[in-house]
Amino acid sequence: MKKEEAEAVKKIGVEKSLLDEISNLAARRGFFFPSCEVYSDANAGFYDYGPFGVLLKNKIIEQWREQLVKKDGMLEIDGCQIMSKSVFEASGHLTSFSDPLVQCEKCKFISRADKLIEEKAKKSVPEKLEPKEYDNLIEKHKIKCPKCDSKLGKTRRWNMMFGLGIGAEGKEGYLRPETCQSIFVDWPRLAATMRIKLPVGICQIGKAFRNEISPRQSLLRTREFTQAEIEVFFNPKKTQIKEKFKEIENYSLQLLPEKKKEIMAVKAKEAVSKKIISNELLAYYLSLLQRFYENIGFRKENMRFRELGNEERAFYAKEAWDFEVLTSSGWVELVACNNRGDYDLGGHAKKSCKNFEFMDENEKVLPWIFELSMGIDRTLYCLMDKAFKKEKVEKTGEERILMQFPAKIAPIQIAIFPLVNKDRLPEIALSIYNQLEDKFEALYDNAGSIGKMYRRQDEIGTPFCITVDYQSKEDKTVTLRNRDDMSQKRI
Amino acid sequence: MKKEEAEAVKKIGVEKSLLDEISNLAARRGFFFPSCEVYSDANAGFYDYGPFGVLLKNKIIEQWREQLVKKDGMLEIDGCQIMSKSVFEASGHLTSFSDPLVQCEKCKFISRADKLIEEKAKKSVPEKLEPKEYDNLIEKHKIKCPKCDSKLGKTRRWNMMFGLGIGAEGKEGYLRPETCQSIFVDWPRLAATMRIKLPVGICQIGKAFRNEISPRQSLLRTREFTQAEIEVFFNPKKTQIKEKFKEIENYSLQLLPEKKKEIMAVKAKEAVSKKIISNELLAYYLSLLQRFYENIGFRKENMRFRELGNEERAFYAKEAWDFEVLTSSGWVELVACNNRGDYDLGGHAKKSCKNFEFMDENEKVLPWIFELSMGIDRTLYCLMDKAFKKEKVEKTGEERILMQFPAKIAPIQIAIFPLVNKDRLPEIALSIYNQLEDKFEALYDNAGSIGKMYRRQDEIGTPFCITVDYQSKEDKTVTLRNRDDMSQKRI
Repeated sequence: MKKEEAEAVKKIGVEKSLLDEISNLAARRGFFFPSCEVYSDANAGFYDYGPFGVLLKNKIIEQWREQLVKKDGMLEIDGCQIMSKSVFEASGHLTSFSDPLVQCEKCKFISRADKLIEEKAKKSVPEKLEPKEYDNLIEKHKIKCPKCDSKLGKTRRWNMMFGLGIGAEGKEGYLRPETCQSIFVDWPRLAATMRIKLPVGICQIGKAFRNEISPRQSLLRTREFTQAEIEVFFNPKKTQIKEKFKEIENYSLQLLPEKKKEIMAVKAKEAVSKKIISNELLAYYLSLLQRFYENIGFRKENMRFRELGNEERAFYAKEAWDFEVLTSSGWVELVACNNRGDYDLGGHAKKSCKNFEFMDENEKVLPWIFELSMGIDRTLYCLMDKAFKKEKVEKTGEERILMQFPAKIAPIQIAIFPLVNKDRLPEIALSIYNQLEDKFEALYDNAGSIGKMYRRQDEIGTPFCITVDYQSKEDKTVTLRNRDDMSQKRI
Repeated sequence: MKKEEAEAVKKIGVEKSLLDEISNLAARRGFFFPSCEVYSDANAGFYDYGPFGVLLKNKIIEQWREQLVKKDGMLEIDGCQIMSKSVFEASGHLTSFSDPLVQCEKCKFISRADKLIEEKAKKSVPEKLEPKEYDNLIEKHKIKCPKCDSKLGKTRRWNMMFGLGIGAEGKEGYLRPETCQSIFVDWPRLAATMRIKLPVGICQIGKAFRNEISPRQSLLRTREFTQAEIEVFFNPKKTQIKEKFKEIENYSLQLLPEKKKEIMAVKAKEAVSKKIISNELLAYYLSLLQRFYENIGFRKENMRFRELGNEERAFYAKEAWDFEVLTSSGWVELVACNNRGDYDLGGHAKKSCKNFEFMDENEKVLPWIFELSMGIDRTLYCLMDKAFKKEKVEKTGEERILMQFPAKIAPIQIAIFPLVNKDRLPEIALSIYNQLEDKFEALYDNAGSIGKMYRRQDEIGTPFCITVDYQSKEDKTVTLRNRDDMSQKRI
């Protein structure tokens, strides 16, 4: 973390990264944990979601569908994860989707060349250099194997796609490294059958796979992950979108343009009129996106769209904004927003010799793509980072951990307990549970003392608990306990 | 299809398989279509879901969550699709998850030995013979290459898992051939953290992958597919489940026990007391499952649980029932229900040297598993097969196709059109659409004549259409049109 970043993190009230604490709580409370963990050959970079993780993840997806897909009338598809070789020849992944890799000549330990040099030479190193340039840096800084201090071999490019053989003939195929390629290759079919008018958002939620050399930081860099990608197909000559834009023109965006040092709060219409964002269409979708993140519980002051400069941007991107949130680990990119021009459809049209053009009113056009590529696991992880709180309970001096999820996305919204496991209290509690479970994500628990059950719900992030006690039998009241201030009142 | 099966199919009112018609409609209307279809190297057995397919699939999943997961208080997890080698050594997939394969010595064409012999010798051939036995049959029946009529090579076993190399070291891993393995290997973690009491259902929805030699029959046998698997962990000594069983004891199951020729309608409690189903726990889950299929629109008389005999059952299965529905392609298996005993947990415990036992009240027990393994794509396909109807419109003599989905699962529940695209009719129609879209899956369309828009909605299976016309402007009424009988009334 850079110095100014560390200071920003300090401002949000945490002193050090919560990575270990969150991973620990996640495993202890059934949010997520390493996949295949009972086996010694379990691989790094794979996580399974437990029951509360699934509930949380599904809430995020539900909100995404509600606030983006449905709100904007997008079309959602669900494409295969294994795709044929041609797709990735056309997309460029086969030739350029790679990291620089260097291996120790003696102990065979493998490192990412750029990261290793960064660490040893204490300077920032781009990930897109030629192998020879990394070798020069390694020589210049006299860098050795980080494990055994022996000589390193030559740097080579490591393609991050998982290849596999299809059918008994073993035809070459790949697990998709991003979900969007299905959307691009399905475009001719969708354009012909779905009565589309430009601009149109086509989106997909699903798994994507990257064979990272060294996965790290819990859910932040894994080898198998869930993406929610939106591809907006538009006519580059028609980026003024009238009524739609009106809806959000006064919405204030958190922008960090390329050459600025401070985040600016700018209304969407000003961002366009001042040419900070190049057009209404882009500003509209960035607004929907930021609003989505506000709605699921992030604070505006801890989010930003960071504009990428020339070196950081993919070569085909006309304009690129990374949506980032400030966490205890620093700024984390959650959504990559890219104006990809006609790179994708042009590439697939050329490779497949099929027609990807579209009749937009009276004009034949090869649509451009504005992409909003969201990491669902990262979003979930950052929600947990944001929700995490450790405090001393004044009365008892005990420490308690609570997850301050907003009620809307909390895995469990309300938990119901009997004070004791007898005298018909469980029956009353269960009947309340049965009434509530239709409307809320509810949970019934009777395994432990009330204190322990409250602590467990605090760690799961349940905003409300109901306790049924002896008084409940007399006057039909119960105790409603609030997660955040632990206050209790009878209702 | 066997003769008696063909007769059964005839009874449900179709003369021939709808496979081609449904695939055609599915592609034309955005339900599903071949993945990567713009490329010549697209592989068989991969399908992408279009927007209406996604809506339909999500409705099925939503009902599954509602009627099975939530109803029974199951825990849902979401595990990785790539798993480590040990998992499949323990599960037995690495050694025995294979099909017999035979290749032409000349043209190299590959066939499944059992299917090829079945076709040529016109007799049923088991898929679990030794390679030598297939070779003997091939010789005996003088079977040649189906492509070039040359000599066939020796039969060998073809493992259907997709293998891949993980990390730069290329560690051996596999795409899971079924979702359930995550549930089994995560059991120690879940048992320790989720306050579990036996019996407990743990379930998962996700992709699974099988490298079929010859995928076929549209969505019925693909290489990448979605499963919804429920694994009920139970103490084999405690299969009487009291209150739960009471709820369904009078529910009538459609059973075809191993040695019977006719489907019997048997109440759950009788099925248990007469030992047709071995215990209450199994009968309870079979009842929930059958009820789920009734609720999403299948007719009781076209479904059955077919008990598997010794030859068909996996060697570890104590009892196995295939849930099947009658379609135009004959009986199709949608859910495999297996009492797997302690095979799974025992295997993983042994291989991992970890403790998979559970403290059930005061008894240490290695839980048994009752599995309900549902194919989501197959379920969707069979819903389409069931919903498909082609009829002559009496008035006009035209042919129309309609998909008679129940409103609950129809991709679109209500469509709204303006009669013409002027005179403020679109604005009125849109305002109605905006009111309805919160409560229903609604669609607005104004691209075409009313007749064409109705036909399109018929093929998508939309039960109701609302048309806004000039009278709407005067008296605020609209026309409500019914999909099935095409009746229209003003409301």
